[in-house]
Amino acid sequence: MATETQIRIGVMGCADIARKVSRAIHLAPNATISGVASRSLEKAKAFATANNYPESTKIHGSYESLLEDPEIDALYVPLPTSLHVEWAIKAAEKGKHILLEKPVAMNVTEFDKIVDACEANGVQIMDGTMWVHNPRTALLKEFLSDSERFGQLKTVQSCFSFAGDEDFLKNDIRVKPGLDGLGALGDAGWYAIRATLLANNFELPKTVTAFPGAVLNEAGVILSCGASLSWEDGRTATIYCSFLANLTMEITAIGTKGTLRVHDFIIPYKETEASFTTSTKAWFNDLVTAWVSPPSEHTVKTELPQEACMVREFARLVGEIKNNGAKPDGYWPSISRKTQLVVDAVKESVDKNYQQISLSGR
Amino acid sequence: MATETQIRIGVMGCADIARKVSRAIHLAPNATISGVASRSLEKAKAFATANNYPESTKIHGSYESLLEDPEIDALYVPLPTSLHVEWAIKAAEKGKHILLEKPVAMNVTEFDKIVDACEANGVQIMDGTMWVHNPRTALLKEFLSDSERFGQLKTVQSCFSFAGDEDFLKNDIRVKPGLDGLGALGDAGWYAIRATLLANNFELPKTVTAFPGAVLNEAGVILSCGASLSWEDGRTATIYCSFLANLTMEITAIGTKGTLRVHDFIIPYKETEASFTTSTKAWFNDLVTAWVSPPSEHTVKTELPQEACMVREFARLVGEIKNNGAKPDGYWPSISRKTQLVVDAVKESVDKNYQQISLSGR
Repeated sequence: MATETQIRIGVMGCADIARKVSRAIHLAPNATISGVASRSLEKAKAFATANNYPESTKIHGSYESLLEDPEIDALYVPLPTSLHVEWAIKAAEKGKHILLEKPVAMNVTEFDKIVDACEANGVQIMDGTMWVHNPRTALLKEFLSDSERFGQLKTVQSCFSFAGDEDFLKNDIRVKPGLDGLGALGDAGWYAIRATLLANNFELPKTVTAFPGAVLNEAGVILSCGASLSWEDGRTATIYCSFLANLTMEITAIGTKGTLRVHDFIIPYKETEASFTTSTKAWFNDLVTAWVSPPSEHTVKTELPQEACMVREFARLVGEIKNNGAKPDGYWPSISRKTQLVVDAVKESVDKNYQQISLSGR
Repeated sequence: MATETQIRIGVMGCADIARKVSRAIHLAPNATISGVASRSLEKAKAFATANNYPESTKIHGSYESLLEDPEIDALYVPLPTSLHVEWAIKAAEKGKHILLEKPVAMNVTEFDKIVDACEANGVQIMDGTMWVHNPRTALLKEFLSDSERFGQLKTVQSCFSFAGDEDFLKNDIRVKPGLDGLGALGDAGWYAIRATLLANNFELPKTVTAFPGAVLNEAGVILSCGASLSWEDGRTATIYCSFLANLTMEITAIGTKGTLRVHDFIIPYKETEASFTTSTKAWFNDLVTAWVSPPSEHTVKTELPQEACMVREFARLVGEIKNNGAKPDGYWPSISRKTQLVVDAVKESVDKNYQQISLSGR
């Protein structure tokens, strides 16, 4: 990829997740880290050193300063969710393309303001959901859209939980109403919702109803919840997310003819490969004492880690705009918006004592 | 087991499932088939021949005639659900112990009448849920109750679907309101509900709420539905059942420290062994690009098929009563009743436009 123009990325904030994405930018063949900002110069400097940033990387002691840097094409923004609307709009207004961590905003109204600013300034926006860029995900989609192997989707169930320790549950920004105030729903639920939407070809559900029994902390932040989604034609989905239960991440999608299972859809067990299980027209032997056609496992080699695939795709789109006069791609913000809409609906249902929320017209 | 007294079982009705259970009675070391009844002598005779019944088996041309047979200790009753209350009570009144197919009744009021009759006549009742007798299930329970490997249960999700063909969806007794009128909920949902209750140590949920989007046939029989269950202390569960989607049967139970997954819990892939997957305190590597401790698979050898284990346990309890003057065991009817209660609540929620149903005091 020596001929490819490197997209110059600035890292806006030194969150923990930025370590992983910094490595991903190093690995992506079409992107390079050109700047980093924190609220203090020292912190930015230490982060750059700890993450092997190139000598040439400009170190900024404020986000504003990074925004003014003319040598930056795009920003990776891992700031707390509550700050997204402010800084993503400022970035767009400075003509910087944006790789924005998820959840993209505190609600879809905020996200629409971000998207408006991106459109007005011709910049690309993409959210930081990594797993959809794993080469495995393309094969999942292929299976789910195969009328012979999978048929029509009937239901999809997805969950993501992990057990936050005492310190996490007390101090992490994801349990603070003023920071990542969507809690487990915005953090873990985002992935499960994205999975159910992906299986439904990003058609929005008609209704969203949270399950009775959501757990909130004293500040009102969701620590665990679940919801059922339903579509006009009888398709259903469930999502579950939690900071209070052992690390688990599942997709089970069942169609008229086939079933798909993924047990590590967000972070694959191994970095170098990823698996999934399918079955088609499964049935029993004559006496129904065993299966004649048990599910089969498929493994995909992952040459580039999924987060580097994400950066590569983002940089490719930015490169198209920068070098070839292309327009920003509308797919990525559209699926961010749909994911956020369902996040909002689950939260609304929890807030309204588990009422059924209609998404019609949203 | 030559010293064990053989419990003499009569098979009341020649349903398809009776083929499998007949073989199980042959295999169980402490039970023998002594009689079979159908509404016609010819049908009963043909069934006995097709299923290798001993020469000595008495063939009955009516259920009444089987009930009068003094050489029968116990009955296996695979009649349509709507007939259970009538025939189970008649059997109890004749002093016959009862292995009753699931769902045990059309509703818990009917089942309570059956249990009353059994208690009044000192007979054992057990339902025909086979998988709980698989040796694997004891290991599942062991894991779920292990405070170090699993911790406290937070959520359990279970589903059972299979794709009924055109003939099934038109003619099977499970889609007929007057026969197995609980449809997919009573048939497939029964198993998923039992799994969620087992994971919850058979503590009844506080509320049951069906998911919007249940599918009913023209006669009002449920073809697919799902529901969420919630407990006082924040535990939740979901169940899903369907006649309209590819064969899939799953348990995913997530605790504070561990996760359990079973992909073939009702009918194991193989008759001779059964597997499940566990993980404990799962976490990621430092950069969150892979798991340091992926789940591990466990396999149990099944020396006797699970349905034969069921017959063996049933015959053991009957033998205790018959030979040792024991009282009927209350565990099995109590879990049948709880399963039926939740079936009823899901149906009530579907009937009431997905209202939340309280189980307090039931």
